[in-house]
Amino acid sequence: MTQFMDVHHGMNGITADQLQQAHQADLDIEKDEGVHFKRAWADPESGTVYCLSEAPSAEAVQRVHERAGHRADEVHEVPLSI
Amino acid sequence: MTQFMDVHHGMNGITADQLQQAHQADLDIEKDEGVHFKRAWADPESGTVYCLSEAPSAEAVQRVHERAGHRADEVHEVPLSI
Repeated sequence: MTQFMDVHHGMNGITADQLQQAHQADLDIEKDEGVHFKRAWADPESGTVYCLSEAPSAEAVQRVHERAGHRADEVHEVPLSI
Repeated sequence: MTQFMDVHHGMNGITADQLQQAHQADLDIEKDEGVHFKRAWADPESGTVYCLSEAPSAEAVQRVHERAGHRADEVHEVPLSI
């Protein structure tokens, strides 16, 4: 499994509850695609959300996000990490 | 302390050793600014590096990165996280 970092823009004003709900919506269906969303971070001011996942492909990450109703603007494989 | 996610572009071809060296250069001086760099992820193909830190301000994060020789292109406070 490879790690991926995906980025959502335009989430200005997102609240802790909304972030939790969006993350839960991913968790609820992620197994269908063999994906696991591990962490998420949000900047309500700039409207940016970052999600860290393990997945078989960037397309699998995007399919989960799309079905959960929040398509990512960028999905990057991050094979290197510390 | 607040969490920050910063992003570096143009790091195409970065290797695991280079990521480790850059991260260590931050760790060596981060205490001067009251910053702690916790994690880093790199996508050599798109040349994107993400760094997660705890810091007193975005400016403090940037000062450490600048002194270490790798200014960030974006620094976002991420007060919300899962």
